[in-house]
Amino acid sequence: MSLTKILLDEKEMPTRWYNLQADMPNLPKPPLHPQTKQPLTGPDLAAIFPMELIKQEVSTERWIDIPEEVQQILKLWRPAPLYRAHRLEKALDTPARIYYKYEGVSPAGSHKANTSIPQAYYNKQAGIKRLATETGAGQWGSALSLACNFFGLECTVYMVKVSYHQKPYRRSLMNVYGAEVIASPSDQTNAGRQILAADSDSMGSLGIAISEAVEDAATREDTNYALGSVLNHVCLHQTIIGQETKAQLARVDEYPDIVIGACGGGSNFAGMAFPFVYDKIKEGKKTRIIAVEPAACPTLTKGKFAYDYGDVAKLAPIAMMYTLGHDFMPPGIHAGGLRYHGESPLVSQLYHDGLIEAKALTQNAVFEAAALFARTEAILPAPESAHAIRVAVEEALACKHSGESKSIVLCLSGHGHFDLSSYDAYLEGSLEDYEYPARMVEESLKKLPVVD
Amino acid sequence: MSLTKILLDEKEMPTRWYNLQADMPNLPKPPLHPQTKQPLTGPDLAAIFPMELIKQEVSTERWIDIPEEVQQILKLWRPAPLYRAHRLEKALDTPARIYYKYEGVSPAGSHKANTSIPQAYYNKQAGIKRLATETGAGQWGSALSLACNFFGLECTVYMVKVSYHQKPYRRSLMNVYGAEVIASPSDQTNAGRQILAADSDSMGSLGIAISEAVEDAATREDTNYALGSVLNHVCLHQTIIGQETKAQLARVDEYPDIVIGACGGGSNFAGMAFPFVYDKIKEGKKTRIIAVEPAACPTLTKGKFAYDYGDVAKLAPIAMMYTLGHDFMPPGIHAGGLRYHGESPLVSQLYHDGLIEAKALTQNAVFEAAALFARTEAILPAPESAHAIRVAVEEALACKHSGESKSIVLCLSGHGHFDLSSYDAYLEGSLEDYEYPARMVEESLKKLPVVD
Repeated sequence: MSLTKILLDEKEMPTRWYNLQADMPNLPKPPLHPQTKQPLTGPDLAAIFPMELIKQEVSTERWIDIPEEVQQILKLWRPAPLYRAHRLEKALDTPARIYYKYEGVSPAGSHKANTSIPQAYYNKQAGIKRLATETGAGQWGSALSLACNFFGLECTVYMVKVSYHQKPYRRSLMNVYGAEVIASPSDQTNAGRQILAADSDSMGSLGIAISEAVEDAATREDTNYALGSVLNHVCLHQTIIGQETKAQLARVDEYPDIVIGACGGGSNFAGMAFPFVYDKIKEGKKTRIIAVEPAACPTLTKGKFAYDYGDVAKLAPIAMMYTLGHDFMPPGIHAGGLRYHGESPLVSQLYHDGLIEAKALTQNAVFEAAALFARTEAILPAPESAHAIRVAVEEALACKHSGESKSIVLCLSGHGHFDLSSYDAYLEGSLEDYEYPARMVEESLKKLPVVD
Repeated sequence: MSLTKILLDEKEMPTRWYNLQADMPNLPKPPLHPQTKQPLTGPDLAAIFPMELIKQEVSTERWIDIPEEVQQILKLWRPAPLYRAHRLEKALDTPARIYYKYEGVSPAGSHKANTSIPQAYYNKQAGIKRLATETGAGQWGSALSLACNFFGLECTVYMVKVSYHQKPYRRSLMNVYGAEVIASPSDQTNAGRQILAADSDSMGSLGIAISEAVEDAATREDTNYALGSVLNHVCLHQTIIGQETKAQLARVDEYPDIVIGACGGGSNFAGMAFPFVYDKIKEGKKTRIIAVEPAACPTLTKGKFAYDYGDVAKLAPIAMMYTLGHDFMPPGIHAGGLRYHGESPLVSQLYHDGLIEAKALTQNAVFEAAALFARTEAILPAPESAHAIRVAVEEALACKHSGESKSIVLCLSGHGHFDLSSYDAYLEGSLEDYEYPARMVEESLKKLPVVD
């Protein structure tokens, strides 16, 4: 049997981020100011972001150096291992070769720390004392709490209420790292109070939590805002995933036929995919690159490519992206990290330009794949990551029928140690299979575009 | 800065276990049959263990080959990384060099899978269909569930009731791996029913849960028993930890001055320590080797070296060991894995012969070290493992005062992702500092030895 784990030494960790904006055929249309609806300027963003991140947001340089201090922290767990899924392949009786990049080795449990560390670093450099953010499943909140702890920043996390109750231990973990965690919608912000006035039982959404965190940051001089997905600089920081994966595959003389990532706001997908998109653009590679989303929040597969608000309270920029509408409220599915109404503008543009594919899945199909994975590969996947596993399984079974021996690589973006109540629901058969919520989406899409 | 992680390739994983019984100056006195009080024979043990494990239990061969199939599974996560704790050292401002061997990379979350995999393997080879076991904190139960899943064995886990309620997601994880989990004491066994009749609110103990599992195994033809600690073959399987650690330290030209492991039944301690004990015996090394236990269950530091029953119902063998008495009921501390009344006979003999030291700690001191560790090294330690961290911190601070630059290595036996309610209690200040429960122990020790 060939190697199970393909490891890189920490000296082989990438020292630069790959910036897709240098190479993509069409750059996304610029983000707009939510009030003026004019293209955003640096000073607009400077109220909530440090200048280095604003520069990265608009940079068209292909490579951007990772600061030494950031590299040192990332090396606590990176390079992340790439696994050959020998046992999963055997269970599927497939001629396909399945590889998974495991980002759950991060102490916060997912890929999110790849960007929380540099974000905290640049804010610290800029003299900021405190960061405010939102979190869905809790992975981003944990990662930012960890990062703020390293740089001596205070951290306040607005956590989507449905996840706050589903995953109490995510809150505990953030507390251990020294952060304050507030269930959103909360009475701490105008945005939160407005939502609660309209619906005191609101389960919350990423859109609402973003409004609260942005308001918090915009109204306090010492505080900036940090976002765990969607933005260009976030996708940039995640490209360390795909770069490592390419190097690891090369070590066993592989190049993938199919690259798969779960897709909520788009950051782990972007991190895995962009270095392979580069090869499609620059070297004419024919790789299929698949973004996988929940059928309950089908942004790419059922949304509109249009200018839309990034949050419910219209405080965040208007972005050109695939969106289900800024007031779309997805059902309380167990992949809380994939409940955002919009999508990274970079990922959206790639999808619009036909460089990537998208697929939507219902919950039970996802958990079936997750349980199969746990029982073969032993690692318990996060429900978000399991979206990618399900599609890898389907593609591997297609190989079985066609007799093709394709090479499939997926991003296993995090572990599911804080998601066991979801597994309980799956094993008990009480998990609801929310299909594409057609009427909700239709209603919500009527309001688009918010700018022509 | 020198390397953070010292990694071995999976081809460098040890292929043999180290058997301390080949080298220790005094072998422990033989275990006795709980009814006849005569030395146990192979046939006595064959009711609940497969022959290969019985052979390992009494072997005096120095090296025992790890079966190829077991190696393949262990390579899903092994060799485990050894970390240099740069950030912890800096926080302590110590000239000491602190290393930690991280066993939490196992998908079940701790070192326990190092022995659950071979135990399931040998039982499968012997034609057994089902394993019964007990678990305290849930780490052993998770590990055995995982192992049984790999070999197609059924698995029933009697889980100490206090942990069953403190750590519901441990149960969920075992369910994902396909095991049945029963809160102990239960009404499923005579042993459990007797305890419940005497105290219907019993929180349980490892001693009781062992009685239930042994009874289950002894009364069913298709079922064997599996134990996650204490026994010689369990300690044997764990020696892969210390062997890897030695190889990793050698890679950076280190040999430890101090080796530290948390100690409940003794298995992770044994796994880390025995290869270094070999060096003390054979090469005259002066290494200090420290076993760390909870002050609430101070087996080595306050117990008696005597023949005692391994469980409450007197079904398990009588062993010559340090013990607090077979009906000692420790307080419901948050390091549930360290609540056993006895101690591995091998570890006990080493302590009796002065080859190792022991130290007992109260809960808040342990969690203080755990939180410091999480905030510097980012990994959230299991409360059990944090006992070792606390002593490493104390030794590093001693180095600061003396100016010595010692090399300290500890076994970080597992992660604390399922222990966050304990961290909550610590952060809220509601963790009780159970001191040595003098009267309870005194009462319990009066019944020793059970055989002269």
